[in-house]
Amino acid sequence: MSMNSFGHIFRVTTWGESHGPALGATVDGCPPGVPLEAEMLQVWLDKRRPGQNKNTTARNEPDQVRILSGVYEGQTTGTPIQLMIENTDQRSKDYGEIEKTFRPGHADITYWQKYGIRDPRGGGRSSARETAARVAAGGVAREALKALVPGLEIKGYMTQMGEKHLDRSKFDWDAIDNNAFWLPDASAVQEWEDYLQFLRVKENDSVGAAIEVVVRGAPVGLGAPVYAKLDTDLAAAMMSINAVKGVEIGEGMAAAGLRGTENADEIFLGNDGKPVFSSNHAGGILGGISSGQDIVVRFAVKPTSSILTPRQSITKTGESIEVITKGRHDPCVGIRAVPVGEAMAACVILDHLMLHRAQIGEGPRGQIG
Amino acid sequence: MSMNSFGHIFRVTTWGESHGPALGATVDGCPPGVPLEAEMLQVWLDKRRPGQNKNTTARNEPDQVRILSGVYEGQTTGTPIQLMIENTDQRSKDYGEIEKTFRPGHADITYWQKYGIRDPRGGGRSSARETAARVAAGGVAREALKALVPGLEIKGYMTQMGEKHLDRSKFDWDAIDNNAFWLPDASAVQEWEDYLQFLRVKENDSVGAAIEVVVRGAPVGLGAPVYAKLDTDLAAAMMSINAVKGVEIGEGMAAAGLRGTENADEIFLGNDGKPVFSSNHAGGILGGISSGQDIVVRFAVKPTSSILTPRQSITKTGESIEVITKGRHDPCVGIRAVPVGEAMAACVILDHLMLHRAQIGEGPRGQIG
Amino acid sequence: MSMNSFGHIFRVTTWGESHGPALGATVDGCPPGVPLEAEMLQVWLDKRRPGQNKNTTARNEPDQVRILSGVYEGQTTGTPIQLMIENTDQRSKDYGEIEKTFRPGHADITYWQKYGIRDPRGGGRSSARETAARVAAGGVAREALKALVPGLEIKGYMTQMGEKHLDRSKFDWDAIDNNAFWLPDASAVQEWEDYLQFLRVKENDSVGAAIEVVVRGAPVGLGAPVYAKLDTDLAAAMMSINAVKGVEIGEGMAAAGLRGTENADEIFLGNDGKPVFSSNHAGGILGGISSGQDIVVRFAVKPTSSILTPRQSITKTGESIEVITKGRHDPCVGIRAVPVGEAMAACVILDHLMLHRAQIGEGPRGQIG
Amino acid sequence: MSMNSFGHIFRVTTWGESHGPALGATVDGCPPGVPLEAEMLQVWLDKRRPGQNKNTTARNEPDQVRILSGVYEGQTTGTPIQLMIENTDQRSKDYGEIEKTFRPGHADITYWQKYGIRDPRGGGRSSARETAARVAAGGVAREALKALVPGLEIKGYMTQMGEKHLDRSKFDWDAIDNNAFWLPDASAVQEWEDYLQFLRVKENDSVGAAIEVVVRGAPVGLGAPVYAKLDTDLAAAMMSINAVKGVEIGEGMAAAGLRGTENADEIFLGNDGKPVFSSNHAGGILGGISSGQDIVVRFAVKPTSSILTPRQSITKTGESIEVITKGRHDPCVGIRAVPVGEAMAACVILDHLMLHRAQIGEGPRGQIG
Repeated sequence: MSMNSFGHIFRVTTWGESHGPALGATVDGCPPGVPLEAEMLQVWLDKRRPGQNKNTTARNEPDQVRILSGVYEGQTTGTPIQLMIENTDQRSKDYGEIEKTFRPGHADITYWQKYGIRDPRGGGRSSARETAARVAAGGVAREALKALVPGLEIKGYMTQMGEKHLDRSKFDWDAIDNNAFWLPDASAVQEWEDYLQFLRVKENDSVGAAIEVVVRGAPVGLGAPVYAKLDTDLAAAMMSINAVKGVEIGEGMAAAGLRGTENADEIFLGNDGKPVFSSNHAGGILGGISSGQDIVVRFAVKPTSSILTPRQSITKTGESIEVITKGRHDPCVGIRAVPVGEAMAACVILDHLMLHRAQIGEGPRGQIG
Repeated sequence: MSMNSFGHIFRVTTWGESHGPALGATVDGCPPGVPLEAEMLQVWLDKRRPGQNKNTTARNEPDQVRILSGVYEGQTTGTPIQLMIENTDQRSKDYGEIEKTFRPGHADITYWQKYGIRDPRGGGRSSARETAARVAAGGVAREALKALVPGLEIKGYMTQMGEKHLDRSKFDWDAIDNNAFWLPDASAVQEWEDYLQFLRVKENDSVGAAIEVVVRGAPVGLGAPVYAKLDTDLAAAMMSINAVKGVEIGEGMAAAGLRGTENADEIFLGNDGKPVFSSNHAGGILGGISSGQDIVVRFAVKPTSSILTPRQSITKTGESIEVITKGRHDPCVGIRAVPVGEAMAACVILDHLMLHRAQIGEGPRGQIG
Repeated sequence: MSMNSFGHIFRVTTWGESHGPALGATVDGCPPGVPLEAEMLQVWLDKRRPGQNKNTTARNEPDQVRILSGVYEGQTTGTPIQLMIENTDQRSKDYGEIEKTFRPGHADITYWQKYGIRDPRGGGRSSARETAARVAAGGVAREALKALVPGLEIKGYMTQMGEKHLDRSKFDWDAIDNNAFWLPDASAVQEWEDYLQFLRVKENDSVGAAIEVVVRGAPVGLGAPVYAKLDTDLAAAMMSINAVKGVEIGEGMAAAGLRGTENADEIFLGNDGKPVFSSNHAGGILGGISSGQDIVVRFAVKPTSSILTPRQSITKTGESIEVITKGRHDPCVGIRAVPVGEAMAACVILDHLMLHRAQIGEGPRGQIG
Repeated sequence: MSMNSFGHIFRVTTWGESHGPALGATVDGCPPGVPLEAEMLQVWLDKRRPGQNKNTTARNEPDQVRILSGVYEGQTTGTPIQLMIENTDQRSKDYGEIEKTFRPGHADITYWQKYGIRDPRGGGRSSARETAARVAAGGVAREALKALVPGLEIKGYMTQMGEKHLDRSKFDWDAIDNNAFWLPDASAVQEWEDYLQFLRVKENDSVGAAIEVVVRGAPVGLGAPVYAKLDTDLAAAMMSINAVKGVEIGEGMAAAGLRGTENADEIFLGNDGKPVFSSNHAGGILGGISSGQDIVVRFAVKPTSSILTPRQSITKTGESIEVITKGRHDPCVGIRAVPVGEAMAACVILDHLMLHRAQIGEGPRGQIG
């Protein structure tokens, strides 16, 4: 039991507060011999980094990650990898006034009641900045997966932002990396952009989002009964991200509205002697174990709670107060949750690959045909 | 790491196959001095038990639970509690023909590919029968909670079954326990009943469902950053239940469509000096920690995969085959998932209460006012 | 965290009290496809079973183990294996009088103070009977190791019983299984036997013992820095056995008296291209990782606390009392600890083999030459 | 499962190599509200620090610890505490020649064989420098214990160094902190000092040691059956320290030579209504649970393997080589193991106190009288 750790064997512990000296991740259990340098992780951190465009917070953090241990001459050694990101742009004055105020939708009130003490600067431990450490750790997982499962791809993208929905008939895998929303539909980018600016500038408001992460090329057989199911761990991974309120695998909540005849993924034998499915309502997971289809996980991020429109709240001493959260805040935190979701998926897949090797080994198992 | 265990301190390990000699749960970490007798658990097992009416499978299992350890003279001793349910109605002939067939939507194909061996009788380990053990363990958690948190209530109910949706304007907490669907609206019961019969008898089909579990009266402060969040563990708990494809806290996936102004739960000071919230979009959890509001978790169960309408599949040796799953199957497994969801919630709440005591103790923490 | 579980991946949870209906072990994480039948476990239980000769307690328990789950048609399926041993000879009258008495050297007083309730019958959970469940679980580990590491041998034997010490110059590996003390020196058996009878019959006394367990043929590379060292887990495993007060690896406590020149195991290259060591002061473990030499672990078991010679104690209500423990008790519990130590070693070795496969895989790693 | 973590709830993960940029400890689960500043930890690091006198290595490391997270305005917040110690004196040239050599008694050969890669600089991850991180984490545990258990004391001291043994008839608790050997007998210090100089300077040799750690004033009731026993965790904690080969509780290995009549700790009722024991053969632990007596744990540290006297070994490519380990090495690493043993004991006691609170709470349990 470790309150800030995730994973069974590939085990990530994040640490650090938004405005402390540094934050980071302690990554234990990584296989040895994986090529690893800070630059490989920086790519993903840059993807998540704030201050890149007008859709995200103006806070200017370089988010430079350093590898303090576990790597020798450019390769992992199998010992713990310490990843540290120093906080440089702390501007704590912005946050001074909120020390005694419980911002609606924030963890201020529950942290205070639970612990009787909290670091209020920038949300302290409950800040979305914690996810930078996850992205760094996810980068390690990606490099290990690259070595162990050639061809595996992990990609996240937005499927909804408020009233805007992805038009799946225009789905374009290659468009994802080429726009600031990671939208798989280039033709919709301008519309989403305008919508977000309208909400932020005209309405002083924020908006929620849905993100889908797809793992393509994962081995068959990852996952285990009954509580170490692959979908169980994916659900936990995504729900542990700040502001996430729902997680779905495949059909997700829509499964409640389907009939058995509609939901069945029928099975055929492909030309390569491997099973082929007629559809993927299951999201690539059957009985908690990967089937070889695309693994599809989706999660919803609530709208940013910090908005310029006033909301009612109370102070630590019980007075009523009207809260307007000034400062640097994303109008849609869901955008930056895309690389975080990818990172969590990478960690879960690697972890389950290792679990599988532990129990089953690398050799043959059940064959078809 | 334990593949069949759940919980940090109150730790439940389920074991057993659908048609083996027995199945059960090993419950470790229960507080001592909790009054416990088999009858207290039997109540919940009876609620989940199949064969009670025409909406659930005809398999006739008494599901009698025995307590083999950890209880002395009617009280828990703090040592592991072994709960065993013997399988009596095994009728394994019904299942003989499926040994070589991969039923669509079932774990047959992934278990086979992963392990190279599986107990095919009734789905073996991946059978929904495993949830009987969870319900028994949840009963233990309920008794412990009764002793530790007087007034706490945990209730599950259906909010959707295929095209039928709960009309929340008619929500009636007291109606829940008085109908076979655990519907909080007595006026809709007949309609749901007719719909299900139509699907089963006329259409040879099955249907999905959504279940909501509410925890009322949980203490403020349960949960912990960052990966031991209360919502993280609730999501994992629900997603680990057979056939579950989505989990939501509060607004859930709908949060993706909301604006910040809509989603804010404003805070006021109640007459008793405790915080009062204007709404509960958060589902009772802020920053992973319980706020004192109702904890609201919802999950979707896919339609039963075993149906009488033929579906295409393949055999172990790769031949094409048309599968019709005869035998005893619920047209909507979601119905019996209600007590399972309650049981999982009870386990998570108790576990987090114990975690909280470990780190914070029972004494005072942050006060308001 | 699980208070009654042991192991990282091959995870054993024992449950049950001395005089409850049954006790057993829940074994999670076993590789699939391992041939397993109850008879294979019974061999080891029979070795540990009391009542076999005059050196051990007269309690007559058949200790028949049943496999309730996780095995299909004689092979493990990779799902949890439930092992149950029913208690038949409970004679609880023997123990009635001790309910209110704290026997010196027993856990009576600490259990009472900690939990405020305890099952006093036969020591309840703290009874040495719990080790029957370990022996059964160890039998599962042995069968898995047989499949995964051909040629691996695990053998335990006594090296000391009170004033009697094993004469290592007469060490005979083949003698071990042919006498009731598992002594590697057939010529000393009669002397040990006489000594024990003298202590029991003439002196109304008991005596301590030291047991050594050797693992021969374990793969190089088992263990991991820093807290999952192979010797760390072996030490925990042995110290967790009832009445054990010390654990040693290789030289053990004697290392405190050695010089560096004496303690060095010099390294040479063998004819087969593998390293050969001039000695084995290290007990087969360097830096927490197995070196390929014999793994040597030793532990001391205190003398049975239940003796016929009166000892001073107090009752639950604080009165002074003279305690004479009648009933059925081994004069040297250390004898029956031999198969328990072997079982624990088997579990640790299998668990670390699985951990190794998780992180490193089965393929090649560092070569010499 | 985490290979570099220790503890159930108060969970410490150490990271870092001897000659990397830094090393440290991630401490998760600390109670909130504990006063904590770097200076409080520095005290213990200074105690362990090398280069202080001629008995320890000449490597000059300031070992300045920094707290990077989890503390706000001088108090712990209940979130992870990151402790970092930067390496300044790396002089890696000293170690260049050993990259291809397996030093006898070191982990060089097993790390290489297991991982196929290792950081050879100063022993990398297997360096005793890792224990600096433990000492820092132990300092955190000490401060938390100070807040939770007033009056609790943890003290370590040497009881043996090669042929020198502590004369227990001269035991002086107050002498411990006043000499470089932490000897509880001031009159023997000069003799031990001369002996060690003789070994180092005249004999080019090193020597082993035994260290005893006593916990005075620990609450009754810490520990839990069966695998989370207090002595099990203490044994694991001590055995995980570099170079430790044996661990004892109370009588330890000597229990093998005792009779039941000798070993019994008889129980009386003290004037304060609490139990008093006639002796402490048990080392303060009965059935895995603390009895209120002094908790006594002892461990043996092997002689430093790095010595100036040549030893035979092989290189990575299989050639024979004579190894003389020049450089900066303690003639008796056992001396500096004293604060490490104390730190581990502090972590275990705090962890079990938290476990106890989780399951039992802070309120009353079984009373005597």
